Amino acid sequence: MVIGGFKVEDVADRASFEEMIYLLWFDKLPNQTELKEFSVSVAELRELPPATLDLLDSYAGKELNMMDALRAAVGTLGWDAPKEGSDLWVAKRLLATFPTIVAAAWRLFNRKKVINPDPVLSHAANYLYMLEGEAPNAERVRGLETYLNTVIDHGLNASTFAARVIVSTASDFVSAIVGAVGALKGPLHGGAPGPALDMVFEIGEAGKAEAVLRKKLEAGERLMGFGHRVYKVRDPRADVLAKAAEQFYKMAGDMKLYNLALDVEKVALRVLEEHKPGRNLQTNVEFYTALLLHGLGLPTQCFTPTFAIGRVGGWLAHCFEQRKDGRLIRPQSEYVGVSDRQWAEIDRR
Amino acid sequence: MVIGGFKVEDVADRASFEEMIYLLWFDKLPNQTELKEFSVSVAELRELPPATLDLLDSYAGKELNMMDALRAAVGTLGWDAPKEGSDLWVAKRLLATFPTIVAAAWRLFNRKKVINPDPVLSHAANYLYMLEGEAPNAERVRGLETYLNTVIDHGLNASTFAARVIVSTASDFVSAIVGAVGALKGPLHGGAPGPALDMVFEIGEAGKAEAVLRKKLEAGERLMGFGHRVYKVRDPRADVLAKAAEQFYKMAGDMKLYNLALDVEKVALRVLEEHKPGRNLQTNVEFYTALLLHGLGLPTQCFTPTFAIGRVGGWLAHCFEQRKDGRLIRPQSEYVGVSDRQWAEIDRR
Repeated sequence: MVIGGFKVEDVADRASFEEMIYLLWFDKLPNQTELKEFSVSVAELRELPPATLDLLDSYAGKELNMMDALRAAVGTLGWDAPKEGSDLWVAKRLLATFPTIVAAAWRLFNRKKVINPDPVLSHAANYLYMLEGEAPNAERVRGLETYLNTVIDHGLNASTFAARVIVSTASDFVSAIVGAVGALKGPLHGGAPGPALDMVFEIGEAGKAEAVLRKKLEAGERLMGFGHRVYKVRDPRADVLAKAAEQFYKMAGDMKLYNLALDVEKVALRVLEEHKPGRNLQTNVEFYTALLLHGLGLPTQCFTPTFAIGRVGGWLAHCFEQRKDGRLIRPQSEYVGVSDRQWAEIDRR
Repeated sequence: MVIGGFKVEDVADRASFEEMIYLLWFDKLPNQTELKEFSVSVAELRELPPATLDLLDSYAGKELNMMDALRAAVGTLGWDAPKEGSDLWVAKRLLATFPTIVAAAWRLFNRKKVINPDPVLSHAANYLYMLEGEAPNAERVRGLETYLNTVIDHGLNASTFAARVIVSTASDFVSAIVGAVGALKGPLHGGAPGPALDMVFEIGEAGKAEAVLRKKLEAGERLMGFGHRVYKVRDPRADVLAKAAEQFYKMAGDMKLYNLALDVEKVALRVLEEHKPGRNLQTNVEFYTALLLHGLGLPTQCFTPTFAIGRVGGWLAHCFEQRKDGRLIRPQSEYVGVSDRQWAEIDRR
């Protein structure tokens, strides 16, 4: 899998998230000056307008999921864009505010005080800081950046396609990204790593894996973290994330959960092949995402929103590309319903 | 052109907007009891939550267009949907609140006090009431309903397609409709009837039409209200709206603007054929929309949002259909960028 001209495994654990964004938006790696200028210009757009914070606050105590909160809050942005060069400004604004929205929503929904962004911290570090109130160590930042870089883009998935359809009408980037968030939150989109981890927790110890997994398959359930609409081989991103997770758990000095996950994966692949021969259901990106994000200490509620914090960089790269192309995406359709109804007055129906 | 099994010209000026919605959502014309029950269940969902009104209020005095306000406000809804049967509830909620949002935004942006919806009035009548503060007469309501019915649905245009892509991930209807509004606001989508009317006003009298139109074409400008991505013949909706406009202006006792528009249309078609032979640019739905909506007394700022008030019914019909289908819309794509970049440390770039 190629991102910005690099194999994902060559770039994801080396680049900072800001470097990766620069690569996708400007089609080259930045030098020191370019990177600094770009990072500062994004960091200074992190703060939310009061009306956006008020809206998130109004949702606290209601049973709203974090993706709905993210979509609603993102939709309130963009009114202060400059008249000239607004696409790049809006793109930076959206990139900059995703972590602020997610952290603010999570804290408000959990009855904690909102923490303002710190412009001195990197994008990834500042996200963890706004969630937790403390600047994170370098290893956690690296782990998070590797994750964000790995999921930053992935061809014409449904959310990216929705963004492109919207931009193709010459609409603005806020509209496109709101549509993309709305698509990403759908359970068929993928990118919801919570359930994969829940399965590992449910199994609890390697010896129980086979029994639990067989029971699920016999009950007609899907095994979360396996199978992908596009990949019929092992998702190349799974290796990058497995490696990052391994390093992280090793460093933290507790390999128990990591090793359990490895065992679960092995058993799952074996029973899947047996239960659905020829279907070739392989480990997907969600399986090791869950392990990594959990290791990084992110709350499960924030898993899918964190995916969005990475993917918005790719959505915006597609928006820039679609803007250049300039053609309306408007499929032809054929009407297949009835077509010869006759009007009847209401008292004769 | 067929809507819900009827030729558009057989149904648009006969059905009430509520009847038309029922036809599209339930695939049959309602009887008296069904229509009443349905209309009441929609009407009782018209009021906006305080947080949504606060958001619109925060935009007053900023240079925000009405479509941005509509998109932002729609995106705040849906958190109070019931757990069961939520699609139909959310669909009714969206249908019911579109006019409330547009009227509230228009009044706030023009420094007027917001008028609460009146549940006793029909959907169309209540929209005019919330804009103006007085219940409209039956002729204006009929004119508006004919317009809303005419534009309620139109195959897989970009906004409808965006909604379907979003629902195809099994996401919710608010997400889908927010995406659709974002697509509709793009200038390439169509459905922006303001400029067509501006052109008629600019011409001012029939004798000047030819000179003004030729000058525009020679300057490479498009003539607003002519040409369509799908139709290479006269848009069938133009006739329905022209007839509705004619009746309305006749009744109002002043045919001057209507007759001017007829003359402009005639000249435009002739000079277009001469200037772009073989392109077959015909009158589209926007030309007579503008004339009709202006005759009905709607402010130009509200033209595109009023289009959305009609079209949301069709978007939602597509959402129901897509939900039944249940398949993810996820195009395959081929990466055509460079793919063999090598990593270089930042100080060597």
